[in-house]
Amino acid sequence: MTARRFDVVGLDADDTLWHSEDSFARVEETFTALMAPYAPAGIDVAAALRATERAYLPILGYGVKSFTLAMVKAAIAVSEGTVPALVVGQLVDAGAGMLTETVRLLPDVPAVLADLSRDHRLVLITKGDLVHQTRKVETSGLAHHFELVEVVLEKDPETYARILRQVDVRPERFCMVGNSVRSDILPVLALGAHAVHIPYPLLWEHEHVDHDEDLDELGSISELPAALREAHATS
Amino acid sequence: MTARRFDVVGLDADDTLWHSEDSFARVEETFTALMAPYAPAGIDVAAALRATERAYLPILGYGVKSFTLAMVKAAIAVSEGTVPALVVGQLVDAGAGMLTETVRLLPDVPAVLADLSRDHRLVLITKGDLVHQTRKVETSGLAHHFELVEVVLEKDPETYARILRQVDVRPERFCMVGNSVRSDILPVLALGAHAVHIPYPLLWEHEHVDHDEDLDELGSISELPAALREAHATS
Repeated sequence: MTARRFDVVGLDADDTLWHSEDSFARVEETFTALMAPYAPAGIDVAAALRATERAYLPILGYGVKSFTLAMVKAAIAVSEGTVPALVVGQLVDAGAGMLTETVRLLPDVPAVLADLSRDHRLVLITKGDLVHQTRKVETSGLAHHFELVEVVLEKDPETYARILRQVDVRPERFCMVGNSVRSDILPVLALGAHAVHIPYPLLWEHEHVDHDEDLDELGSISELPAALREAHATS
Repeated sequence: MTARRFDVVGLDADDTLWHSEDSFARVEETFTALMAPYAPAGIDVAAALRATERAYLPILGYGVKSFTLAMVKAAIAVSEGTVPALVVGQLVDAGAGMLTETVRLLPDVPAVLADLSRDHRLVLITKGDLVHQTRKVETSGLAHHFELVEVVLEKDPETYARILRQVDVRPERFCMVGNSVRSDILPVLALGAHAVHIPYPLLWEHEHVDHDEDLDELGSISELPAALREAHATS
């Protein structure tokens, strides 16, 4: 029996375990379509929504409820107050609908977690809305794999350091896995821990980051168990 | 030197350390005033808002962002879609304004926490919005007193049991302090831990509960340090 390289594996949730960004993209299209009749020619409705989201991020934080409130504010702004209330209601319903959407797991996620959990402790670390993220992990049927589910305000080195202390693991025995270089990879490497990047086809522009680091990257989560064994064999 | 009765004191935040419910009441009045011109005669606008909040609670969870989305939905409903978008915008601004309101501490809170923290470990346990509650505790200047700040989905016995395990304290050595019998007192007593009720003049109707228990109750938080010493002397 070989010793494993990592004691604890941290997993991001949105766009790492299940689809998320494609729902935001779909509701953004609904927003653009619903607002078209009310926005003066020459207004980039989608850009206004993204800018509103960004402007409110420090106040509202991440997640679907914040995004929905940003849609309401952007709709009023781009229509110069002419959008009918019933259309605003449709925007709120489109946003709130994301909160109760069935979780759509990425391929092989249940098998991968079952495999990893045989010889690692698993923690789920996600930004966003407490009620929404908790509902997703519970309705996914995957909650039992996780020793800890942490919904955090921001994924910075301080947050990861606190979680590592909480689960009592040294950085060199921790590996984080996620789709965002900005949130899942760089702050973890900054602590001296390990991280594996698994890109998702869509990335929220807020998560874009330029970096020079040579990162460990996989094409899909199904490659993760072998990659962690490999990490051990070559370490 | 006498041994203390409790190792860990848990404190609720809203309406225990700082004012909260009066802000909701103020914004509810704004809602009622703004909607008056658009609601048909005979509509109880305030009741419709409270019912909308309650209906969305399982989906949206607690907190100001959820309350703000409920205001938007209720405004559209009670006005039968006639509310102008700019009035909806005023409602969103009134709600979002609560998120950045300066924290207004209840009397004596800083001195009480300084006193308690000399011989107890303190944890803050609150429902609501992650970004809002975190901002309040950090801007209050009180964060340094707390070993742990937990923003939870629901204050039920399972949640308290998890937190007690996390801070490694036995129920008989834990005392919770808060203004809601439903959330701060009964679920804690159910675990065999201790709880002190400090009522606030306003209570959200969702927190109302009928009960037969004879509860430890104080008139204000300034009585808490002496009450905990008393609890020791008579235990």
